[in-house]
Amino acid sequence: MQQTSNLPIGVFDSGMGGLTVLSALHSSLPQEHFIYLGDTARLPYGTKTRETVIKYAEQAASALVARGIKALVVACNTASGIALPALQKRFAPLPVYGVVEPGAIAAVHAASIAAIGTSVVVLATESTISSGAYQKAITKLAPQIRIFGRACPLWVTLAEMGNRDANLTRDILAHDIRGFLQKGPCVFLLGCTHFPVFSQALAEISSTVTVVDSAATTAAVVAEKLKTLNLLTNSLLKDNLLVDDLLSDAKQGQTLYLATDGAARFKQVGGQFLNCALDEVELVDL
Amino acid sequence: MQQTSNLPIGVFDSGMGGLTVLSALHSSLPQEHFIYLGDTARLPYGTKTRETVIKYAEQAASALVARGIKALVVACNTASGIALPALQKRFAPLPVYGVVEPGAIAAVHAASIAAIGTSVVVLATESTISSGAYQKAITKLAPQIRIFGRACPLWVTLAEMGNRDANLTRDILAHDIRGFLQKGPCVFLLGCTHFPVFSQALAEISSTVTVVDSAATTAAVVAEKLKTLNLLTNSLLKDNLLVDDLLSDAKQGQTLYLATDGAARFKQVGGQFLNCALDEVELVDL
Repeated sequence: MQQTSNLPIGVFDSGMGGLTVLSALHSSLPQEHFIYLGDTARLPYGTKTRETVIKYAEQAASALVARGIKALVVACNTASGIALPALQKRFAPLPVYGVVEPGAIAAVHAASIAAIGTSVVVLATESTISSGAYQKAITKLAPQIRIFGRACPLWVTLAEMGNRDANLTRDILAHDIRGFLQKGPCVFLLGCTHFPVFSQALAEISSTVTVVDSAATTAAVVAEKLKTLNLLTNSLLKDNLLVDDLLSDAKQGQTLYLATDGAARFKQVGGQFLNCALDEVELVDL
Repeated sequence: MQQTSNLPIGVFDSGMGGLTVLSALHSSLPQEHFIYLGDTARLPYGTKTRETVIKYAEQAASALVARGIKALVVACNTASGIALPALQKRFAPLPVYGVVEPGAIAAVHAASIAAIGTSVVVLATESTISSGAYQKAITKLAPQIRIFGRACPLWVTLAEMGNRDANLTRDILAHDIRGFLQKGPCVFLLGCTHFPVFSQALAEISSTVTVVDSAATTAAVVAEKLKTLNLLTNSLLKDNLLVDDLLSDAKQGQTLYLATDGAARFKQVGGQFLNCALDEVELVDL
């Protein structure tokens, strides 16, 4: 029987944006195996109701659990903001992590090292903003911080278009953030996994704002928690001092990619979120 | 048993855009009953693969057929362009009509009364453009017409945002059509049911182009075909000279609205496509 600690980590997103989180997980945990599921047939989640987001998130999580995973990362802000408690309850004792709390940690940290009175502007989908999840997570960490939320419904499509026209991208981004540039020092928190592709463009529009996203912090939080739970690959085996496994420490983990529609498009567009070419993508039906 | 001719006409779309077609059907066939289904949980269809569009269209059509309809109107360009033959085959002998052929008729007619050498520019979703359905339908009607296709992925989201910022709308529309304004006289065919909300804005960007959509032509085609099939409300009864039914001729038909997600949002955003307030919206699961 396979050791639990050697099972892959499941990661899911409504589509391809979550690959920015997977990319950070690859960097933090290079030896781990991953199964990434993008629910591309039903994206975006950001315009759906609470009930439908929970239903779809549970279906995606079930498909990953059925393949055998040791932990689940919800790499979709909308699903993290809305469905995390439902997923943690349903799949207990499986550890289930989201991206909202790590994103809040990143924003609060950035604000704390910036000027006094720096605000946080959450840029996200309609559902994430209206769920208030980021606002609550930031307030819990730093009640004194002023928080603004801005729904950016065009940005998901814009990101999936592959940033094909820099002028159009700049015009749309500038339109949506313009109102905040006069509000004093700001941290822009990219509260949608699609949005890190705009980090550079946002920095060019305003050199005075700090742009942060959840990806790196999520990867750090997941790595730390799996270590605490003794769930890192080979960690159980190392305690048993099996020489073969000690030797295999240097091995790179493998990633399996699943999508609910458009495997070819997933490979093509996904590469830009992952910052490298994708292997084969398997089509699944939820 | 209810006469077939008195059953409602089923209309479906991936979301709310098809309400522009329903609005035209209401005008052409005021006495008919309709059941409109918007698959709002899974929109947009325009980025999905052929296989998934056919699967979702068949599920939507099945839900309408199960409620008892005398004809089906596929008020979604993507589903019409891709799934119409599959739906006609599966639900035969139910009459199933799409919006692509009527749209092509409208474009060819507009081009024929414009300057010699007028081109047709099809503005639609990625899936509709890549299916080539409009290009084929126009070529069949008028092989001499030069046709351009332009995928406008941002426009669906923009339309659903309720045209909340006229400047942003104009910037995005102008960006996408700019290349065609130097190509001589053009007819812009709005090949997505969401796009008629931009007719006015497009006309303002260029006073030299003609803008047409499928809605009115589809309604005219459906009315004509149902008449030929003796399927208009009360038409069978009129032949039997039932006085009650002759008296009921002046009655307005009723419309039932179904959506797969977000009934409240459907009521709110749908009103702008329908040009009037919506009654209750019933939530259904496909």
